[in-house]
Amino acid sequence: MPTHLSRRDFVAAALSTAALSPLLARAYSDEVPSVSTPPWRDQAVENLTKSPHAKLRNIPVHAVTIKEGFWSPRRKINVTRSIPTMHDLLEANGRMNNFRRLAGKSNAEQHGPVFSDSDIYKWTEAVGFALQSGDLQDLRPTVDKMIGEVIAVQEPSGYLNTYYVEDRKSLRMTPQTQTTGHEIYNIGHMLQGAIAYYRGTGDRRLLDAGIRFVDDFLLPNYGLAPKQPIVSGHPEIEMGLIELYRITGDKRQLDLAGYILQGDERVKLPEHRTIYMYSGTPFTARTKLEGHAVRAMYACCGATDYYLETGDQTYWKTLNTLWDDLTKHQMYISGGVGARSDGEAFGDAYELPNARAYGESCAAIGNMMWNWRMLAATGEAKYTDVIERALYNGINSGMSLDGTLYCYRNPLAFDPSTGDKIRNPWYDVTCCPPNLERTLASLPGYFYSTSNDGLYVHLYDNSDLDWHLEDGTGLKLSQKSNYPWNGNVELAVTPDRPTDFVIHLRIPGWADRAQVAVNGKPITGARSGEYLPLQRKWSSGDKITLQMEMPVQVLEANYHVEDNNGRVAVQRGPLLYCLEEVDQSNVALSDVAMDLGKDPSARFQTERRSDLLGGVLVLRLEGVALERSTSELSLYSRYSGASVKTRRVPLTMIPYYAWANRNATSMQVWTPVARPS
Amino acid sequence: MPTHLSRRDFVAAALSTAALSPLLARAYSDEVPSVSTPPWRDQAVENLTKSPHAKLRNIPVHAVTIKEGFWSPRRKINVTRSIPTMHDLLEANGRMNNFRRLAGKSNAEQHGPVFSDSDIYKWTEAVGFALQSGDLQDLRPTVDKMIGEVIAVQEPSGYLNTYYVEDRKSLRMTPQTQTTGHEIYNIGHMLQGAIAYYRGTGDRRLLDAGIRFVDDFLLPNYGLAPKQPIVSGHPEIEMGLIELYRITGDKRQLDLAGYILQGDERVKLPEHRTIYMYSGTPFTARTKLEGHAVRAMYACCGATDYYLETGDQTYWKTLNTLWDDLTKHQMYISGGVGARSDGEAFGDAYELPNARAYGESCAAIGNMMWNWRMLAATGEAKYTDVIERALYNGINSGMSLDGTLYCYRNPLAFDPSTGDKIRNPWYDVTCCPPNLERTLASLPGYFYSTSNDGLYVHLYDNSDLDWHLEDGTGLKLSQKSNYPWNGNVELAVTPDRPTDFVIHLRIPGWADRAQVAVNGKPITGARSGEYLPLQRKWSSGDKITLQMEMPVQVLEANYHVEDNNGRVAVQRGPLLYCLEEVDQSNVALSDVAMDLGKDPSARFQTERRSDLLGGVLVLRLEGVALERSTSELSLYSRYSGASVKTRRVPLTMIPYYAWANRNATSMQVWTPVARPS
Repeated sequence: MPTHLSRRDFVAAALSTAALSPLLARAYSDEVPSVSTPPWRDQAVENLTKSPHAKLRNIPVHAVTIKEGFWSPRRKINVTRSIPTMHDLLEANGRMNNFRRLAGKSNAEQHGPVFSDSDIYKWTEAVGFALQSGDLQDLRPTVDKMIGEVIAVQEPSGYLNTYYVEDRKSLRMTPQTQTTGHEIYNIGHMLQGAIAYYRGTGDRRLLDAGIRFVDDFLLPNYGLAPKQPIVSGHPEIEMGLIELYRITGDKRQLDLAGYILQGDERVKLPEHRTIYMYSGTPFTARTKLEGHAVRAMYACCGATDYYLETGDQTYWKTLNTLWDDLTKHQMYISGGVGARSDGEAFGDAYELPNARAYGESCAAIGNMMWNWRMLAATGEAKYTDVIERALYNGINSGMSLDGTLYCYRNPLAFDPSTGDKIRNPWYDVTCCPPNLERTLASLPGYFYSTSNDGLYVHLYDNSDLDWHLEDGTGLKLSQKSNYPWNGNVELAVTPDRPTDFVIHLRIPGWADRAQVAVNGKPITGARSGEYLPLQRKWSSGDKITLQMEMPVQVLEANYHVEDNNGRVAVQRGPLLYCLEEVDQSNVALSDVAMDLGKDPSARFQTERRSDLLGGVLVLRLEGVALERSTSELSLYSRYSGASVKTRRVPLTMIPYYAWANRNATSMQVWTPVARPS
Repeated sequence: MPTHLSRRDFVAAALSTAALSPLLARAYSDEVPSVSTPPWRDQAVENLTKSPHAKLRNIPVHAVTIKEGFWSPRRKINVTRSIPTMHDLLEANGRMNNFRRLAGKSNAEQHGPVFSDSDIYKWTEAVGFALQSGDLQDLRPTVDKMIGEVIAVQEPSGYLNTYYVEDRKSLRMTPQTQTTGHEIYNIGHMLQGAIAYYRGTGDRRLLDAGIRFVDDFLLPNYGLAPKQPIVSGHPEIEMGLIELYRITGDKRQLDLAGYILQGDERVKLPEHRTIYMYSGTPFTARTKLEGHAVRAMYACCGATDYYLETGDQTYWKTLNTLWDDLTKHQMYISGGVGARSDGEAFGDAYELPNARAYGESCAAIGNMMWNWRMLAATGEAKYTDVIERALYNGINSGMSLDGTLYCYRNPLAFDPSTGDKIRNPWYDVTCCPPNLERTLASLPGYFYSTSNDGLYVHLYDNSDLDWHLEDGTGLKLSQKSNYPWNGNVELAVTPDRPTDFVIHLRIPGWADRAQVAVNGKPITGARSGEYLPLQRKWSSGDKITLQMEMPVQVLEANYHVEDNNGRVAVQRGPLLYCLEEVDQSNVALSDVAMDLGKDPSARFQTERRSDLLGGVLVLRLEGVALERSTSELSLYSRYSGASVKTRRVPLTMIPYYAWANRNATSMQVWTPVARPS
């Protein structure tokens, strides 16, 4: 599509005139691409302005203001409680002293696992995104000081790591330290943290330190023979390098990411290791999701980024194969991924246990990040459906409503008698908490994308967009909605001047019946799971109304998912629901079944409960309970067909994301269907 | 019950006069108990002749001859193929060279895991049991030589281990080597192997080496302070020490077992370790089965042995609590145990996945061994039901029909597309193969027990008993049966002289309708899951007939077992059945369901197939298959109630134990029930 490309090139070139940051001149003036990068404050979650194979481009986090509605309390808690208390926990657990120690400013011992540096970088990334929204300004001096303490211990070579020092210095940059030692992973998070902080502040210090690690230490010494090999170990740096390339334009950084995604044949690792690590062998040779779920998701993110820059079709083919595997065999209905605690790993196809689900918060976030990249490549709404499923459910469940307790695992059933404590303030492997924090902080950046023909609307909540089309035309867009509690959205469109462009309005996959009108005039063609293109000369005062019926939907799983045989899950709009025992009337969840009849949706009543769990809509229905508790029955007995004695019980369901915010009781997402009596 | 006790004491004393072996005088003449041990050839699987809290006593392996029938081909293969080929594999994998190396007779490196010595001991135990039946006489010179090579490297202190030598010698007998190093576990198997070989041959050399390890090395140096501590790590030695005590009468050996079962507070291990190891903390503080399944089962065996000798009620209470946990929450319908591959461990209550079941062969054997001990303590048939379930199914599945391939895992569903190879000739952790071999070799010892009032009949197969009652009255008993293919058994009773005693005839738990007659005269009172006591003056020529109806039985699991919701399993008599895809008509197992109607049993036809799998009875029924394969359906979809389109398909089931003896195809035990159409 030469027209397309030339148009984008034109737009980018036009932008560059206005936007070239003087800061960008420094390290790579001779590498600077023909079109420039937007200024730091406009670089968005991913800076895809120059990515040749991106159909959609991100808009900056600051361009969207999320107003009072579903997400605002979560985001407010994130900046008032979560991020600040996590700072204190990181300090209390010695993560910063690891750096200070090397500068002679702390006498503490090295603290935490080998990847402890990444805890600081991930938290810095969360702060960076919050700053992009104008939040957390009073935390800046603290973080500025921390960054100073981090970069103070970068070695002249560019190397920076607080674990492989002193006695362990000789171990550096072997396959062992690169993999088990998370040496490369740490730098990936350093780059991501540095970039987010730079985009929130313009402060380049950590970014420049990252560039020094990459340009001075990695590039001259590591890569294809005769350089020394790199094995990713825990994919992460691939994304970091490519996002760095999107700032610097230094193609060597992109190529290094490609080299790492390819794996280096000189590093011989056992097959089970390369499966677990989802790295070390060519990404393009992968045929399924397996091994460590977060690693696999981050590898897919990096590989999609690589595709967005290179258009390499072998990558694209692999990514589609893996995405089909994800959505056909591997994804929880919560959008979480990773069935097994053992290895924090994907299981076999259809292996989706409920109580034993791992569903690490980081893996659900990785799933969202990957689908965000696939969406950028295609503009296809099937990816946004996965993003929404993960965001509202399997990610949203990861942080307590008060913002100080985090899930590492996100199971779909829970029995407190196992003694498992599902929400905790701190994990020594503290990947999930700052990951949840960065996701909430960056959320405005996921609401919209631009395309060369206009704007894509992905997510719905009360919010204001203030940005511009790719041709530079200023555009404001305001959403009014009670989403996800109901399906009505009003969008007020205010371009700088009357302009012909397309607004691609997302009709979620769950929305069987959606009606769209522009200025009151119905528009046909809305189909669930697609973007409805609304093309017109948009003028200030134009209004779009989207009305989606939001009945309760009862879902079943593929029969291959043994754990869900005979059971159903309930969702309403994007929200997955669950039963918590505390809401029921003296009945054990393991004894209840749902009486669904011929018209399951009609069995449910909704009730708005502003007093409950920060304000939720609960679902009520009639169920049945076994007269004799299953706990009293023997493990195996003669098949009884329909002859089990039951009694009627009322059942109350809450949104899954809000579970485990009261006293620990049983929870389940998948509930048996009562046998016809 | 003083009468009871005094009668047994009398019997034991009477036996001692005839049976005292001159060999027994050696090492512990001053420890010899008041009543003696039977001669080596009559000491049975467990020598309970003097165990004060045993209600039942074992009979020697040689006293029962299993004739042509269900078990004979398995036992024949065991001695003609399994045990001999395992010898060659042990040699090929350096297990004997580990010993020879230390005697300067081999230049090979140390081979195999830390517990490799136990491979030799376990195999020796299997040989010992085979010799007790008179089998494998031509292998004796080989084993005699091997034993010579083993004991040649026992150190003067009594210590014997081929791994903790040379550079590793300094590591010996720390909590680390006792646990992870399997140092204590190895000696447990040495004792068991030595005892079985002694009982098969009278050869005391390995037994005396074991006694030296215990008496010279362990007892003076290890135990309560001020001695050094022992932590079991992998329970096994508890059984070994107590069986040794049953030979020697040296109570210090029993007390050492008790000390180990109690754990030593001086050894501080993390809780997850003591859970995994099922040792290191007081056995009597356990409230559930958890951690490594084989460890837990062996700990329960040792603890029951300890109870049989001491009558300690805290042990008995714990054992009952654990047995309830086993049978209510933890046992597969195959009698296998251990749900999780991760840690080869028990899962949570009701965690019984099918395809991912671990069900290690050793754990099912441990289950049988534990229940055998519980049965000895009580004479209660509920334990025999578990023994039979495990023996015919979850243990029997562990060895291929040709006797050269072994299962480590025994899953209840299998998909060959996972690439898993379920039967293998060798595992570097080769615990299961010799364990299966010893179980088949010792099987005659599990058919009967004596009690102070007569005889218990536990298992049914064509066989001859030639033994005596506890009062010394000679007794022959001959069984004729096609069990387990049908439920008719004829027992011919031939006492030396007309004698009044009780024959306790087992009515299996599955046998809803059993008719018993003596000399053609019906006897009332037969109840499933109980022993029917037949008391009379038995005379030569007396005949018992037992006729058990053996319909196909359809079973369901407790609703808590999510993996089996909506599914049923099929058994007939003691045999669990399964579907193997190779027997079906071009339909994927994942697409089929059983149409059971109102009278499930009536839906099945049986067919004797002497040509198939060594001769089995197959079950046929009509099933349904989904018109559209589940593999094509999406992972989640709207609940469809009963509206799924199906077609009729014939289904063929084979006994579970015989699965995976043809080309690898899918297998499943639990199959969905078709929804009423």
